Amino acid sequence: MNYSVLKRLLIGKPLKTKELGDQKLSKLKALAILSSDALSSVAYGTEQILIVLATVGVLAYWYSIPIAIGVLVLLTALILSYRQIIYAYPQGGGAYIVSKTNLGENPGLIAGGSLLVDYILTVAVSVSAGTDALTSAFPTLHHYNVVIACLLVIFITVLNLRGVTESASVLAYPVYLFVIALILLIAVGLFKIATGQVSPELHPSLGTVVPGISLFLLLKAFSSGCSALTGVEAISNAVPNFKEPGAKNAVHTLMLMGGILAVLFSGITFLAYWLGISPKADETVVSQIASSVFGRNGFYYFIQGTTALILVLAANTGFSAFPLLAVNLSSDKYMPRMFQIRGDRLGYSNGIVTLGIASIILIVAFKGATEQLIPLYAVGVFIPFTLSQTGMIVKWLREKPAGWQGKLTINLIGALITLTVLIILFTTKFSQVWSVLIFLPVIVYIFHRIHTHYEAVGEQLRIKQGEKIGKLEGSVVIVPVAGMTKVVENSLNYARTIGDTVIAVHVAFDRESEKRMEEKWEKWQPDIRIVTFHSQYRSLVRPLFRFIDMAEEKARENNMAITVVIPQFITKKSWQNILHNQSSLLLKAHLLYRKNVIVTTVPYRFKK
Amino acid sequence: MNYSVLKRLLIGKPLKTKELGDQKLSKLKALAILSSDALSSVAYGTEQILIVLATVGVLAYWYSIPIAIGVLVLLTALILSYRQIIYAYPQGGGAYIVSKTNLGENPGLIAGGSLLVDYILTVAVSVSAGTDALTSAFPTLHHYNVVIACLLVIFITVLNLRGVTESASVLAYPVYLFVIALILLIAVGLFKIATGQVSPELHPSLGTVVPGISLFLLLKAFSSGCSALTGVEAISNAVPNFKEPGAKNAVHTLMLMGGILAVLFSGITFLAYWLGISPKADETVVSQIASSVFGRNGFYYFIQGTTALILVLAANTGFSAFPLLAVNLSSDKYMPRMFQIRGDRLGYSNGIVTLGIASIILIVAFKGATEQLIPLYAVGVFIPFTLSQTGMIVKWLREKPAGWQGKLTINLIGALITLTVLIILFTTKFSQVWSVLIFLPVIVYIFHRIHTHYEAVGEQLRIKQGEKIGKLEGSVVIVPVAGMTKVVENSLNYARTIGDTVIAVHVAFDRESEKRMEEKWEKWQPDIRIVTFHSQYRSLVRPLFRFIDMAEEKARENNMAITVVIPQFITKKSWQNILHNQSSLLLKAHLLYRKNVIVTTVPYRFKK
Repeated sequence: MNYSVLKRLLIGKPLKTKELGDQKLSKLKALAILSSDALSSVAYGTEQILIVLATVGVLAYWYSIPIAIGVLVLLTALILSYRQIIYAYPQGGGAYIVSKTNLGENPGLIAGGSLLVDYILTVAVSVSAGTDALTSAFPTLHHYNVVIACLLVIFITVLNLRGVTESASVLAYPVYLFVIALILLIAVGLFKIATGQVSPELHPSLGTVVPGISLFLLLKAFSSGCSALTGVEAISNAVPNFKEPGAKNAVHTLMLMGGILAVLFSGITFLAYWLGISPKADETVVSQIASSVFGRNGFYYFIQGTTALILVLAANTGFSAFPLLAVNLSSDKYMPRMFQIRGDRLGYSNGIVTLGIASIILIVAFKGATEQLIPLYAVGVFIPFTLSQTGMIVKWLREKPAGWQGKLTINLIGALITLTVLIILFTTKFSQVWSVLIFLPVIVYIFHRIHTHYEAVGEQLRIKQGEKIGKLEGSVVIVPVAGMTKVVENSLNYARTIGDTVIAVHVAFDRESEKRMEEKWEKWQPDIRIVTFHSQYRSLVRPLFRFIDMAEEKARENNMAITVVIPQFITKKSWQNILHNQSSLLLKAHLLYRKNVIVTTVPYRFKK
Repeated sequence: MNYSVLKRLLIGKPLKTKELGDQKLSKLKALAILSSDALSSVAYGTEQILIVLATVGVLAYWYSIPIAIGVLVLLTALILSYRQIIYAYPQGGGAYIVSKTNLGENPGLIAGGSLLVDYILTVAVSVSAGTDALTSAFPTLHHYNVVIACLLVIFITVLNLRGVTESASVLAYPVYLFVIALILLIAVGLFKIATGQVSPELHPSLGTVVPGISLFLLLKAFSSGCSALTGVEAISNAVPNFKEPGAKNAVHTLMLMGGILAVLFSGITFLAYWLGISPKADETVVSQIASSVFGRNGFYYFIQGTTALILVLAANTGFSAFPLLAVNLSSDKYMPRMFQIRGDRLGYSNGIVTLGIASIILIVAFKGATEQLIPLYAVGVFIPFTLSQTGMIVKWLREKPAGWQGKLTINLIGALITLTVLIILFTTKFSQVWSVLIFLPVIVYIFHRIHTHYEAVGEQLRIKQGEKIGKLEGSVVIVPVAGMTKVVENSLNYARTIGDTVIAVHVAFDRESEKRMEEKWEKWQPDIRIVTFHSQYRSLVRPLFRFIDMAEEKARENNMAITVVIPQFITKKSWQNILHNQSSLLLKAHLLYRKNVIVTTVPYRFKK
């Protein structure tokens, strides 16, 4: 089949289940795969702060320094908290598992639901941002933004279907290059400042009094800056993907990522402040810094290029985390079972494909302008942040292990800070984030409906001790016949071998053909009883169903099964299917869903 | 089911087959149903002529009078020819039947194919034109042109699904009103001219020398004017829809239609000439005549309103003729069999629905600007015109009935004129009609492919004298089992009643669970043999198929049938289907299409 060849080509040959170990991540690869989201936030975090401050005026820019310090404090608290979570829950699952275990079902589902939505937003937002960066460089492509973004999502989806480590190999380089590029930029920038090559007059000095500044505005700027912290939780969700010892490796990766993130974010924010850079509609803050440090030479384009790349790759964090979270929710029966199936290459293909499709829908729906979704995205991250820190507090209070006071303090600080950020986000950006208050309850409701269904099904399928289903006494076979052809003869032959009683049923559209059929049948198949009807309304289904109802009642009395045998033409080429009235398919569906009979399909193959 | 309630509401209650006679058309109703296309052409025929003449200048307008006379001659020839066709082929079918019977298969298929396409164009073009007329009156609706046109097509489709006479009752009035409105307009216009209320200075006198005029241009104007004749053939296709005596009633209707068409077309063309009217982009010629005869009063709006209505209703001609032609092609095995089935209300629903969908696709693809299709539409009409006249010539020459010379002459003239028009259309408008030369061969090719398939199938199904299919010796039943649940127990019970041998097959993903299954099974169903596999690639299908291949070979040797029993969950609510891996559906399709086994579906109903 062509489909399998295509699949093999795109995804690679199937892997054996025991090859799973080979697919696990080393620390360096994990850093690339799991932190591209967090690191890429540096490309827009500082800018988000300056945009808010710019509404008051250039003088207010110095506030970016204390705000950045606030963000760094928050980052430290988060990293320390998540370090504890990884050690405590090495099986992964992050906010969902932590909240569910310690706070109960609904908090867990709220955390899980908001993370699921968040990963979809991650993919949509970062791919759109990367596409914008790309088409800014090549303006002729601007018209095709949505198409390019969708193609990129498809590309990343296919890479992930190929498997975790293979995608890591491809995706690792851009992340490292981006880190190197930004460190170079910061180092050269600081060197130029230190050697006096930059005028010290470009920026307002710290502490300048700014007319019109308000606490509300500063909080808003701070909450905008917090968007630089999205993606920090990805590592804690993916601990099972790490090589052994998983927890330890994951914590090392987390600390390394935190360090890099802190260096890059503070460096960029400081340079932006010192160089007196204002956010512009058509050029990013990072681009302005780079062009004022290097001029528009090769270095500048290197920085722009790696930035664009890492923004696209940030989407990959979503692809690592979403399927794992879906597996957790699915094995707890809150999501369809299909999310637990490993594909040919051992990735959870259904989760990967679902994420790809959902983010393409978002990109198309917002016509690629997904930056409107950033505040929503931040809220979606800080809800599970807060819930998991709170869960950890409850855990320490309940278990009281050695040194629990220190651990409790760390998570308490984490919980307080993240809750504060959440409150700030809701108060300063309510108009952009209110929709969370609607769709989160809806998602949690759907989780519950699914759970109820699976529980009910399990209950119905279970065989209870000593319970026996009554044996059947025999089988009545009904064969609807349209005429006297080889197909019918074929079906009748089969019916004879499986049935104790075989009855042929014929529906005619007028009296004459009904009579003609009866007469011919008598000569053709004298050993099989035929029942004929004529339908004034040209419906096959109604008379047949009436007959089946009658037969069913009788069969139930005698404890017999009723089987309806339906022939199905298998044409040589698939286009030929349209040439045969698909009444047999319709009939089968009707019978299965509306009547209590067993349906047998006898294939009849055309040779030409 | 909700679907049937909705269907009942839209389409009405099913009719008995014998009620078919009541659905036949009286002459007056037939006039309304079958001639709206031809009569509505008056709304644009004159304008098409003037648009071509306007490229030379106002002086050339007087040529519209001799051109209109040419069109009238053509109309007379067509009416007389079709009169003879109706008498000769009272079973209907028009150009397709006539060409096929007298000229052979391929000319018949060319005629049939171009008419099918033409009816789709009729619907798309006339509904778009009607929508334009409507939104010209209410400019705020202009933005929704495509949506309105599609809704109108859906409305007409539903009316036709309700049945022929019911739609006639609704659709008759606008046609009559349109005829009355135009006759009134012409009468008042002529009266004003006769009583000297119109300045005789408005138009160039007949015979004025026009610089720059050419034969090519005059022919182009003539061929444009011929678009007023599209739709004339509709009556000859629909003879079986008439009340008895069908042929006679059809001929009377045809003559009546021809007369009305001649009066309206010559009246409008004469008034346009006399009043010196120029075609304008934003106002139709008819509208200009009406406003100069009446001024913008109630009469004017009455004429505009009925014109818009009849343009929309012209689509209905397509809905009457397309399904009948499809039935003819289908009973000759050139189109899928489904076109022969009468729906609940005795109309050929599949043809009606196909036409509706195809024209909606055209409207959407051309964004409602379907006037570009008018020349194509004219070519699509004149090809079958020419073919059927030629067919009649052959018929008279072969049969030589009493008075055949006169009949031959009439059809000969008809054939020569329509062929001339066709040649003119191709030479003067090649850039707009070349695509006919591609899609007609494609359609004819498809017809042949379908025909070949049906012939081959018929050959394979036929039971030849004395031929007997070998009887089966018994039945082997294979039951794939996933675990030990009630569903499996249910399937096994059924398998026991139909099979001489029952084998359970289990696929495990690792050795341990394989062994566990074997041990448990021994206690649970000791009388049924279980075969277990373990799949390193997590695929159920591959090991199962390998086993089936083996079993099949053995069964063939012993002349036994192989049945695979597959349970199917029937959930209470349809959304719950997504919660169960649809592996059973996939497995069934794979088995039926790729293996030579019989598939039995045992439904298992969830009670909650």
